[in-house]
Amino acid sequence: MKKHTDHEYEAELREVREHVLLMGARVEDMMRQAMLALINRDTVLAERTIAEDNQVNRLEVESDELCLRILARRQPVASDLRFITIALKLVTDLERIGDVVVNICERVIELNQEPPLRPYRSIQQMAEGAEGMVREALDAFVKGDAERAHHVLGMDRNVDDDYSRIFRELLTYMMEDPRTIFRATRLQSIAKYLERIADHATNIAEMVVFMVKGKDIRHQGRRGIA
Amino acid sequence: MKKHTDHEYEAELREVREHVLLMGARVEDMMRQAMLALINRDTVLAERTIAEDNQVNRLEVESDELCLRILARRQPVASDLRFITIALKLVTDLERIGDVVVNICERVIELNQEPPLRPYRSIQQMAEGAEGMVREALDAFVKGDAERAHHVLGMDRNVDDDYSRIFRELLTYMMEDPRTIFRATRLQSIAKYLERIADHATNIAEMVVFMVKGKDIRHQGRRGIA
Repeated sequence: MKKHTDHEYEAELREVREHVLLMGARVEDMMRQAMLALINRDTVLAERTIAEDNQVNRLEVESDELCLRILARRQPVASDLRFITIALKLVTDLERIGDVVVNICERVIELNQEPPLRPYRSIQQMAEGAEGMVREALDAFVKGDAERAHHVLGMDRNVDDDYSRIFRELLTYMMEDPRTIFRATRLQSIAKYLERIADHATNIAEMVVFMVKGKDIRHQGRRGIA
Repeated sequence: MKKHTDHEYEAELREVREHVLLMGARVEDMMRQAMLALINRDTVLAERTIAEDNQVNRLEVESDELCLRILARRQPVASDLRFITIALKLVTDLERIGDVVVNICERVIELNQEPPLRPYRSIQQMAEGAEGMVREALDAFVKGDAERAHHVLGMDRNVDDDYSRIFRELLTYMMEDPRTIFRATRLQSIAKYLERIADHATNIAEMVVFMVKGKDIRHQGRRGIA
């Protein structure tokens, strides 16, 4: 009987893991679609991507319910308890990434109503960097791999650098030709949103380190404040 | 002996509540200071506010530790379990608000190095709206008041309207006088950050409704997507 219960318990934990992975796959798809919608000026794809966020939202609610049920019935301890609490926090980050992609798509739809401004190459590169961080962070979560999570923290700097460069580039556009101002501020918003996605991935990675090592590395030298 | 344990348990739950309230008080202070730093062009205050974010970060880690200890030792059920899981998620929102205020202060410091652009009246009003939402959401959490939490959800529309107005206003500035572009994009960022704080307050309020009613209202009609 005991063994049977353990099997069920394992299955429940696996179900949480699968929900997190599925959410991750969904937001990664959404990110890629949002960039395609930008580059190909595809408003229909942007709208479809916005609609897909509902799936992400549903997965979050379901995952939280699973976690609450496990906490109430199984009373997990030690590493399982850390896994569940991280899952509770982590799906919030994934859900917010979905929201941010929706915001990107809204800006894309606005941009598609204006003449094209530029090839968006650097924004696409930034998006790939942010998406890579999300993928790595979730991989680290699923595998309980602290080293991989640490790697994600290092990737954040590239995305931040991309953001600064894009922001300055677009500022130059605006100053040289005020007719570009509306479009340039929209593109700045998109770059800012991508930076936010990278921040969510960083948060996930920090939680994974905590989950694996039981050591809270959040807020350690993330900001250069004396 | 049982009674003694219950007393201790109650004290532990109270300690979580107090940590959340203290975090809330800290981020509200930070928000007010950031606005003063903007209006009075007070870079020293902006820097001090950035440094204060460390306290918020520390409180988050402590609160999470308290929650984990309660989950592991007390195995709470029903409403106590919901309270603890919401606290785990909610402190993340408060911590992120602290981060956003740090970003605002960074923009303020940049703006203080330029000639003043405008009286910032509308941004201050928007900040007051966002701060009110944070305060009400935490009040609703502490009192377990779903009605008050619902009220917060309604307040978000005002902040969104403020944001749209400020964004358009600043766009006009830039188009009329390209010398204002750098400062105007900075002010747009600040307005965007305030909107993000309001979003965090909305998230907290939605979680409070779930905590009180056991009903998940997240993702219900928050976005007008078919």
